[in-house]
Amino acid sequence: MAQNIYDDETFFKGYSALPRSERGLDGAPEWPSLKAMLPALGHKNVTDLGCGFGWFAAHAAASGAASVIAYDISENMLARAREINANPAITYAQADLDQLTLAAGSADLVYSSLAFHYLSDLKRLFAEISKALVAGGNLVFSVEHPMFTSPVTQGWVKDVHGERSWPINNYLNEGARSSDWLAQGVVKQHRTFATYLNLLTANNVRLTHAEEWGPTGAELAANSALADERQRPTFLLISARKNP
Amino acid sequence: MAQNIYDDETFFKGYSALPRSERGLDGAPEWPSLKAMLPALGHKNVTDLGCGFGWFAAHAAASGAASVIAYDISENMLARAREINANPAITYAQADLDQLTLAAGSADLVYSSLAFHYLSDLKRLFAEISKALVAGGNLVFSVEHPMFTSPVTQGWVKDVHGERSWPINNYLNEGARSSDWLAQGVVKQHRTFATYLNLLTANNVRLTHAEEWGPTGAELAANSALADERQRPTFLLISARKNP
Repeated sequence: MAQNIYDDETFFKGYSALPRSERGLDGAPEWPSLKAMLPALGHKNVTDLGCGFGWFAAHAAASGAASVIAYDISENMLARAREINANPAITYAQADLDQLTLAAGSADLVYSSLAFHYLSDLKRLFAEISKALVAGGNLVFSVEHPMFTSPVTQGWVKDVHGERSWPINNYLNEGARSSDWLAQGVVKQHRTFATYLNLLTANNVRLTHAEEWGPTGAELAANSALADERQRPTFLLISARKNP
Repeated sequence: MAQNIYDDETFFKGYSALPRSERGLDGAPEWPSLKAMLPALGHKNVTDLGCGFGWFAAHAAASGAASVIAYDISENMLARAREINANPAITYAQADLDQLTLAAGSADLVYSSLAFHYLSDLKRLFAEISKALVAGGNLVFSVEHPMFTSPVTQGWVKDVHGERSWPINNYLNEGARSSDWLAQGVVKQHRTFATYLNLLTANNVRLTHAEEWGPTGAELAANSALADERQRPTFLLISARKNP
């Protein structure tokens, strides 16, 4: 069962004030890269795992998707999504992704942004995703990068060589990490990069592209706060296809 | 053109004294994992890129490979290989992997252990590998892990939280890194994990397994010096197949 930190009042307030919450997809620096990894959305049946405020669901619907089923664990998130991103093609539904089952062949595209690292049982969910995808269907997801989630205490340091650095430890020790992000004691699950990749191949899904997101020179010039992302990326983006 | 550090006298002497040089494959802690990623070798045509002292070539020949072409840039390495790992099925040949061309359809298996991170132009070589592989053929390789190669100055630190850690920086800035390993000024090329993966898919080769090598509990009990490998793995192992 996943921790539902999004219904924690302090967390929800902090999350709601993030650029990606207020401004939607354009407030997420990695969105252009993730968007480039998507198939054409017209007439597609889309499943969104961890839909948050529904920004992607609304984008998919506006792009002509036949249907979007958008799941989130948080009633707060869903209430806001129904309010600001309603569309007749979208069905918002409450679900714990650690327990959700999906109908076989129900999805041309399974999409998930920054949700999987909250889940305890990704092996189970990836089997559900594979079952849900039609042959040739697409899986596009982002997670917090394994280098980001690895250390037991996360934070930048100036290393002994004077370089601003992200100290890695316990990389191969997968499991829960507690961090203070918007609220205290937010629990995320650290998994290695290889674990994410092997979950694909074990489920008859083929990697098509991987991106460890960082800003381009132009993005960096426009927003110098992104400089750290080139030192150690926060986001891992993956696209994959169900084998025929 | 790749730096030929292996023909540097100091480096060669140090390298020759490593367990993996003296004891062969059994002296390399990651070998059991890499071996498990190999196809059956019987009757296969094998190309070994960066063969060193020929330990893998000899293993392949002893396992019934029809032929093994084993390339290395270093004449010192090849002389030793011909001396200690000769086999009628093996052809040892000198080549700079940054310039080598391979014959189309010549390989059922392309193997490379800890060589690619010395090369400047992996894009070119992966196109050669793809061309050389028969449909359904296997590519199995290891490289120094991108987390290992990333920092401009490499080394363990005790971070501000008191954890023994590997400080990451410049992860997305690919290119040469100079380190002092066995000799001064050894030049290796840092590439991101995603770059290795996308080189596969761009060349019609499909990822089948990835492993960020670390010791099991039993291996750790037998050799406590391997403990750091669980904090931040040194080796990335990849297996892949040429699409039909």
